[in-house]
Amino acid sequence: MHPLPIAPPPRLLMGPGPINSDPRVLHAMSAQLVGQFDPAMTEYMAETQELYRRVFRTGNEATLLVDGTSRAGIEAAMVSLVRPGDRVLVPVFGRFGSLLVEIAERCGAEVHALHAEWGTVFAPEQIEAAIREVRPTLLAVVHGDTSTTMVQPLADLGRICRENGVLFYSDVTASLGGNDVRTDEWGLDAVTAGLQKCLGGPSGSAPLTLSPAAVAVLDERRSIEAGLRAPGAGDADSPAPAERIRSNYFDLAMILDYWGPKRLNHHTEATTMLYGARECARILLEEGLDAAIGRHALHGSAMLEGVRGLGLEVFGDVAHKMTNVVGVAIPDGVDGDAVRGELLTDYGIEIGTSFGPLHGRIWRIGTMGYNARRDAVLTTLAALEQVLRRAGAAVTAGGGTGAALDVYAATA
Amino acid sequence: MHPLPIAPPPRLLMGPGPINSDPRVLHAMSAQLVGQFDPAMTEYMAETQELYRRVFRTGNEATLLVDGTSRAGIEAAMVSLVRPGDRVLVPVFGRFGSLLVEIAERCGAEVHALHAEWGTVFAPEQIEAAIREVRPTLLAVVHGDTSTTMVQPLADLGRICRENGVLFYSDVTASLGGNDVRTDEWGLDAVTAGLQKCLGGPSGSAPLTLSPAAVAVLDERRSIEAGLRAPGAGDADSPAPAERIRSNYFDLAMILDYWGPKRLNHHTEATTMLYGARECARILLEEGLDAAIGRHALHGSAMLEGVRGLGLEVFGDVAHKMTNVVGVAIPDGVDGDAVRGELLTDYGIEIGTSFGPLHGRIWRIGTMGYNARRDAVLTTLAALEQVLRRAGAAVTAGGGTGAALDVYAATA
Repeated sequence: MHPLPIAPPPRLLMGPGPINSDPRVLHAMSAQLVGQFDPAMTEYMAETQELYRRVFRTGNEATLLVDGTSRAGIEAAMVSLVRPGDRVLVPVFGRFGSLLVEIAERCGAEVHALHAEWGTVFAPEQIEAAIREVRPTLLAVVHGDTSTTMVQPLADLGRICRENGVLFYSDVTASLGGNDVRTDEWGLDAVTAGLQKCLGGPSGSAPLTLSPAAVAVLDERRSIEAGLRAPGAGDADSPAPAERIRSNYFDLAMILDYWGPKRLNHHTEATTMLYGARECARILLEEGLDAAIGRHALHGSAMLEGVRGLGLEVFGDVAHKMTNVVGVAIPDGVDGDAVRGELLTDYGIEIGTSFGPLHGRIWRIGTMGYNARRDAVLTTLAALEQVLRRAGAAVTAGGGTGAALDVYAATA
Repeated sequence: MHPLPIAPPPRLLMGPGPINSDPRVLHAMSAQLVGQFDPAMTEYMAETQELYRRVFRTGNEATLLVDGTSRAGIEAAMVSLVRPGDRVLVPVFGRFGSLLVEIAERCGAEVHALHAEWGTVFAPEQIEAAIREVRPTLLAVVHGDTSTTMVQPLADLGRICRENGVLFYSDVTASLGGNDVRTDEWGLDAVTAGLQKCLGGPSGSAPLTLSPAAVAVLDERRSIEAGLRAPGAGDADSPAPAERIRSNYFDLAMILDYWGPKRLNHHTEATTMLYGARECARILLEEGLDAAIGRHALHGSAMLEGVRGLGLEVFGDVAHKMTNVVGVAIPDGVDGDAVRGELLTDYGIEIGTSFGPLHGRIWRIGTMGYNARRDAVLTTLAALEQVLRRAGAAVTAGGGTGAALDVYAATA
């Protein structure tokens, strides 16, 4: 085997993410490396922190990147904030809520899950009642769960958490940049994300922010790596075993010491991913956060009305739908995977399948990041019409693009 | 603050890594994304697995990438193979051995460390005696430890481990591609690496391989993520809590199910890092593994003789030195950090500082990956001579480049 250089086929990625990367992000990632403690590098790190403070709408000093996918950010937040035996409350309304449960369990937490039917979200009162009953140390909730296309309102939860002495964590991977996320205003103590959704970058870097209250938890669990201690310092810097964070790679106290003024060596920062993460935030803020959210709302509406215009049914509680992804019921008698395959093979367009209880029942179509664009929406609807007709589904000729164009005309 | 696009200053990175990325790797990383389960993507994943089998010199089916830095690969191997309470033996001859101790401790292992003086390595008999005494389930040893520039011979350890029923793990991050690494021939059960040393890529992806014996341990600890289980399947797929791997992100059983024929969704593969990792292996094998190791040996020798030719003293047991990095004693009266700063500012060249007991005593100069080149060696020696002279050190004019050119002439 002598593989050739990378030359991927052209694809228009209209699934629930990852989506096509903004070419400016890939361009930034092709820049040559500098050393880990080069003044240029530490300046890029500081700029990246400041950019993500603005993206997260926070004043948190403790804002940085975890070197891994969005799931790495989730695990870093959980394993650093949750002590074995701590009670964690997780309202679950989709697959990624189940992931929070699973990760919290593996951290040794006593996990209490609330369940909402897929396609719905929780009322704040339900979560408040559960907090009063469970008395957790941490509330962990997904913001936008692409598995169901729902976005859980968070605005009231911060006050409830504060009143009950509970830390408040949210995974905003799928919502950030295309839906409103307000870290400080909503009273969030920990927020984690990824690049591969509305930020228009590749997976592999997880922006994260921590409130002073979250940092106070880390301060009780901080240790200094053995190989970095001054000679003769011994283990004096290590906390009691019960306090010790169970992971080195995800030890946010150490990672903060690396990103902060101490610049204590930890992992070797993934420079190319940092270049990409910085560019994602830079171009998002150049557009303006509110403008980007408005763009996602516009193209998400056009796609929603477009699939309805084709005669298809939309999944779930549309009032709580994320801007950037729509669930579409697979018509009776249509083979969902065959339609997806034909879209990919004949049109180079990818739409998403589904997980768990929705598998085989809905497709998920995204309009996010670089692909929250008029041409991407119209091309997808045009191709979907052709493929559905060939699959024997009853579709309204021109109904998809027509409805989408009506949305654009109404907002022009 | 309105930061500009990424435009790093030109640097020649001659430290212990990261080093400059091969431009072909950065080019591969600028390719557009495809979907996570696109046939093109799964084919790239399969090719990457096969390429790294050849780089690791193994037939192990279980060969893949962990999405994180080399330290993520270490933690994935440890947390997946070590059950809380297991005994782990770690021979420590530098900082990265201490890191293995720390990570094993955090996994809940009972860790037994052997210590060698920095600048030396272990005789196999020392490790064999400790194995007989400790009776660990896992021997974890760094191959090349850049903190001391030493490479621990591993060839005899696999037999000792097999005779004693011990799994054998090595971190070859700093050695792979520039020093001999023979997974199957040496009887290794788990090997982890990174891209940022002799492979000539950026940090952020950790190639990893596991023997069938290591996979058998994972098989006892395998679970299926809650959000992916068939409706009604409940927790039947989950192992007993004592067996459960403490991390989801680093659960190699799950990651194998994602890379293997089941293609069970786990994290969202970091596509751009995968493109880079694939290209690193592709160009290494295009050159030929033995040719690349020979190239590192040649340019490493030229740098070693060059620094001696300048009148500087080399650190440690040179018979056990890695090919790709040399420790250089900072001359008396010279401010090591000032010299490094002047090299960076005036010549754009980075050399390394040191950790722990060697901090302030030695510089570390690398010749690895894309920078294991004649022009990089000679330029570094020429600049070092200038800077050292200005710092008041006694240096032999032309002695560095002259000695290096003699090495090249002798091997021409």
